[in-house]
Amino acid sequence: MSDGPVFGELDHPPRLLMGPGPINVHPRVLRAMSVSVLGQFDPEFTTYMNETMALYRRVFATGNPWTFLVDGTSRAAIEAALVSTLAPGDDVVILDFGRFGMLLSEIAARCGARITLVEAPWGEVVPPEAVEAAVRRVRPRLVACVHGDTSTTMAQPIEDLGAICRAHDALLYIDATATLGGMAVATDAWGADIVSAGLQKCLGGPSGSAPITLSDRAAAHVRGRRHVERGLAGPGAFQGAGPRIGSNYFDLAMIMDYWSPDRLNHHTEAASMLYAARECARVVLEEGLEARFARHALAGEAVAAGVQAMGLEVYGDSSHRMTNVTGVLAPAGVDCDRVRARLREDFEIEIGSAFGPLAGKIWRIGAMGINARKHAVLTTLAALEAVLRAEGFAFQSGAGVDAAMAVYADTTR
Amino acid sequence: MSDGPVFGELDHPPRLLMGPGPINVHPRVLRAMSVSVLGQFDPEFTTYMNETMALYRRVFATGNPWTFLVDGTSRAAIEAALVSTLAPGDDVVILDFGRFGMLLSEIAARCGARITLVEAPWGEVVPPEAVEAAVRRVRPRLVACVHGDTSTTMAQPIEDLGAICRAHDALLYIDATATLGGMAVATDAWGADIVSAGLQKCLGGPSGSAPITLSDRAAAHVRGRRHVERGLAGPGAFQGAGPRIGSNYFDLAMIMDYWSPDRLNHHTEAASMLYAARECARVVLEEGLEARFARHALAGEAVAAGVQAMGLEVYGDSSHRMTNVTGVLAPAGVDCDRVRARLREDFEIEIGSAFGPLAGKIWRIGAMGINARKHAVLTTLAALEAVLRAEGFAFQSGAGVDAAMAVYADTTR
Repeated sequence: MSDGPVFGELDHPPRLLMGPGPINVHPRVLRAMSVSVLGQFDPEFTTYMNETMALYRRVFATGNPWTFLVDGTSRAAIEAALVSTLAPGDDVVILDFGRFGMLLSEIAARCGARITLVEAPWGEVVPPEAVEAAVRRVRPRLVACVHGDTSTTMAQPIEDLGAICRAHDALLYIDATATLGGMAVATDAWGADIVSAGLQKCLGGPSGSAPITLSDRAAAHVRGRRHVERGLAGPGAFQGAGPRIGSNYFDLAMIMDYWSPDRLNHHTEAASMLYAARECARVVLEEGLEARFARHALAGEAVAAGVQAMGLEVYGDSSHRMTNVTGVLAPAGVDCDRVRARLREDFEIEIGSAFGPLAGKIWRIGAMGINARKHAVLTTLAALEAVLRAEGFAFQSGAGVDAAMAVYADTTR
Repeated sequence: MSDGPVFGELDHPPRLLMGPGPINVHPRVLRAMSVSVLGQFDPEFTTYMNETMALYRRVFATGNPWTFLVDGTSRAAIEAALVSTLAPGDDVVILDFGRFGMLLSEIAARCGARITLVEAPWGEVVPPEAVEAAVRRVRPRLVACVHGDTSTTMAQPIEDLGAICRAHDALLYIDATATLGGMAVATDAWGADIVSAGLQKCLGGPSGSAPITLSDRAAAHVRGRRHVERGLAGPGAFQGAGPRIGSNYFDLAMIMDYWSPDRLNHHTEAASMLYAARECARVVLEEGLEARFARHALAGEAVAAGVQAMGLEVYGDSSHRMTNVTGVLAPAGVDCDRVRARLREDFEIEIGSAFGPLAGKIWRIGAMGINARKHAVLTTLAALEAVLRAEGFAFQSGAGVDAAMAVYADTTR
């Protein structure tokens, strides 16, 4: 009765993913996804949901009750944050220092918001004074900023932004997709109102589930725009006075109803991805956040020392580099994409290419999650050395690996 | 260095999910999700993406090149279909015969569309003449309809709608979330322009990935609204003349660019969920669509025969019932929710409650995917008998199970 051939089993070689994400998923997380699913209103399942909320409060370093998952990739949570806060005509100030800052303005424009960009050249970050000046001038509803923009490998300092926003009654949204679980994301200490992420970077999971947290004032704003679906609202249902949110799927007020004890029906929670998200957080917290940040920083330092010892230049303002993704300038005469292809074909190692002005000019080497480890870093450098030798680039063989080993051996750190 | 206790392992009893979805995931699909992930532009991974497109063409019974996945739950694909076709001020005609018809109008309203409802009472379906009259009057951009609305267990006949839409130059969208892989979904034969689904019903996967297919004319309309992100568009990039789509994440034109040979960056494909979707389709096609539809129909018939033999009434217009979800009226004096709770507590079996006007009045018993099988149906009926006995409902013990066994034993079918 079969309808004919259906291709084969999933069957690919093991590959070491040392790009800017996705990265290799922690084996415990892979295993969690193979656990049987439960109904979405099952008491065991809603207990898992509540545990996931509690775990991500700790991962986000926040006391925010409203800490949960958006069922989509990291980009889904970005859109949920923006469309649930910004109504058409609202002003938003966006820090733009790379492709993912551009993405924030792209999404905010579709929300109908008026956008003020505070830009920095690629490879640099935005000075807080420029943000303050823009906020003072525009009086925006929201200030939106990427924490670590993998397109440039820069990490924007967030410390000053919360105070600026509170002084001018703006909400602060941080896209921590590429940093949560790998660099310090201090939601409450920063005074950030909404922070979101994805699993596929430092959290060590697959793409497809997006943790998010909302401060009480962000939650109050969002709930002020609450409009319960006709199919669910009883005659006395609370409807917010604010403009209805322009998306149903990304309506955080309704998603919060679903994650609240009311369990008002919205989407059908993606159970396997929730299992993945929960296990990612367990792995992160069992290691400990500080230990994890240190491990990522050490790996990033080893990558940078390694490529520099090979005579390559690290991209961008060195005082604001992300610890978990390193940009490396391809030397003159070396074909960026061919090196990447050979690394994949000969060594089963993936490193990243780049976007826009950096396309064909830099490689992006990530060391995140389970791959922010000595063996992964050393293997990648050894492979890169071999490929660069084959491509005719002159440097001292072994220097890259040795320099990285020296970083790992340095007990004075 | 641990940050403290992190709850336990996922550890719940096996539960038989016989509600309207989600249902137990096929073991092969669970296993597929535990396979190592790949980078989204890896040739092996893009091959899996292409295979997934080819597999779902067969599942949707279509030749549409544009057949792919939306990274979210079934509701995500509904919103993607509506927001990518409907611009503010566009007219849409929606067939409304249950909660999920309401959901279509809820989402369309957030797209800024003008909505004309063609309604049927709960438990019935919409006459095609009423649709034709509305389309003739309104001349909508789009006609939108749920195929099987699990809230009422009714399956709307779609056969006539394609011709009506083409005669009046409207696009036809079908939400086949609850039927794809379980009842015949004849995309091309129906003349449907967009059909979408989710994995968590008859396809036998977890919620979180949403297959979708677009006809050439739907694709042309959507591409006419294409506006490539600033971070990606070269100076000569094609931008459609139509109004920009009101969502970035659900912009089908950009998602199509990502699934096209151009592989233009959009979201990071949810690799584990793609593996799940691919394996669901392989399982479905290896069994064969016709065999699968017959298996679901047989299971539905056995459920209905069983509950009727127990003296219970099946809900809704019997000539238009879904085969895979059966509504059962709770008899007078029996507490709907208490029966469900006892089924779960004593038998580890979940059946569904209901929404809106049917809340507390009917149970919804699903037999979908791997659970559309004799043992699951018989076990559920035996358990329901035991619980109803315990609740004091008078009927002939064993009658339900025996009637269902008789359906399975009937070789004249």
